[in-house]
Amino acid sequence: MRIGVLGTGIVGQTIGRRLVGLGHAVTMGSRTAGNEKAVAWAAEAGEGAGEGTFADAAAFGELVINATNGNASLDALEAAGAANLAGKVLIDVSNALDMSQGMPPAVGVGNADSMGERIQRAFPEAHVVKTLNTMNCNVMVDPATVPGSHTVFVCGDREGAKTEVRRLLAEFGWPPEDVLDLGGIAASRGVELYVALWVHLWMATGTGQLNIKVVTG
Amino acid sequence: MRIGVLGTGIVGQTIGRRLVGLGHAVTMGSRTAGNEKAVAWAAEAGEGAGEGTFADAAAFGELVINATNGNASLDALEAAGAANLAGKVLIDVSNALDMSQGMPPAVGVGNADSMGERIQRAFPEAHVVKTLNTMNCNVMVDPATVPGSHTVFVCGDREGAKTEVRRLLAEFGWPPEDVLDLGGIAASRGVELYVALWVHLWMATGTGQLNIKVVTG
Repeated sequence: MRIGVLGTGIVGQTIGRRLVGLGHAVTMGSRTAGNEKAVAWAAEAGEGAGEGTFADAAAFGELVINATNGNASLDALEAAGAANLAGKVLIDVSNALDMSQGMPPAVGVGNADSMGERIQRAFPEAHVVKTLNTMNCNVMVDPATVPGSHTVFVCGDREGAKTEVRRLLAEFGWPPEDVLDLGGIAASRGVELYVALWVHLWMATGTGQLNIKVVTG
Repeated sequence: MRIGVLGTGIVGQTIGRRLVGLGHAVTMGSRTAGNEKAVAWAAEAGEGAGEGTFADAAAFGELVINATNGNASLDALEAAGAANLAGKVLIDVSNALDMSQGMPPAVGVGNADSMGERIQRAFPEAHVVKTLNTMNCNVMVDPATVPGSHTVFVCGDREGAKTEVRRLLAEFGWPPEDVLDLGGIAASRGVELYVALWVHLWMATGTGQLNIKVVTG
């Protein structure tokens, strides 16, 4: 399918490359068309990869992925344009990290809100699904880089959108039984605040190839 | 050993009962001696179980466990008395949950602080170890209620205190390989903010007999 990936950082590049490898057509969006990183990415990713503005990418995509830094996501989506997002699945993988006080970063947007919710509120006609933000981008697109069974979360207010996201997660290699539906978009605050723990897990284990598995009795 | 358990709620009762069952002498502390719940608990828990004020419990314990509601913990520890905590391992299992806006609660004390850190700052001579706050109290004291391998975290600024806590966790049934040391007490913000995810896991899975296993590549 046609997918717009917003963001030219390592997350956007990795997701975009994987999608192209899976046969999707991907336009990477950034603040300005001709962005150096986006052009280099498109050249390297090969056939099916293009680049343009946030609006170009969002207009191109039948599905749109927000892979921008959480602190810049609302501006990026504003530039993408509500009309270009309306009625589409908008996958939000963003995290808002505040490094201003050094490491570890302060994570999230307070303890009673989240980027997922803010984006859904700001773009009520987009079908926002929060997923994949709980791991680094190599694990996102290739869960086998972490051995055995481990969990990816999805949440969003529209069931159909989550079904579509599950299909994409399966393409990335996620077994259906490792996808845990947390309900509505309000659960974004859970998966976003978890990243505060992820940072400490990363520091303690010395690897970013990590994830958690939810185990129940 | 002699252990003071601060708090008469379900967490304090469950931990206290388990400790008595393991042969420890436990004094449950509350705001006032003769607290109805503490008296009933001590009668039911049997030999080795007593009750008194927060100060009584802290003075009694060679090790002290803060099992009060996070919103009340600093007051409870103030009542326990810095002198009664000095030089002792102080296990903090508390979570600060704000239910004033309904369910799910807002979790934690902002995204750049934690109860564990606040307690360590307020009582610099106590050897604070944050642990066990990432699960319900039945799982805390009997990890086999959740099948297979899953993770409990410890963090604290003093290695000796963490070693003592690992011994207690082993008595509860935690295999050493499932105890993950996250470093200093600053990692408390990770395990405390994780509880925002735990609440959604609980709602999505319909069971509190749940935990996470950290998996690395």
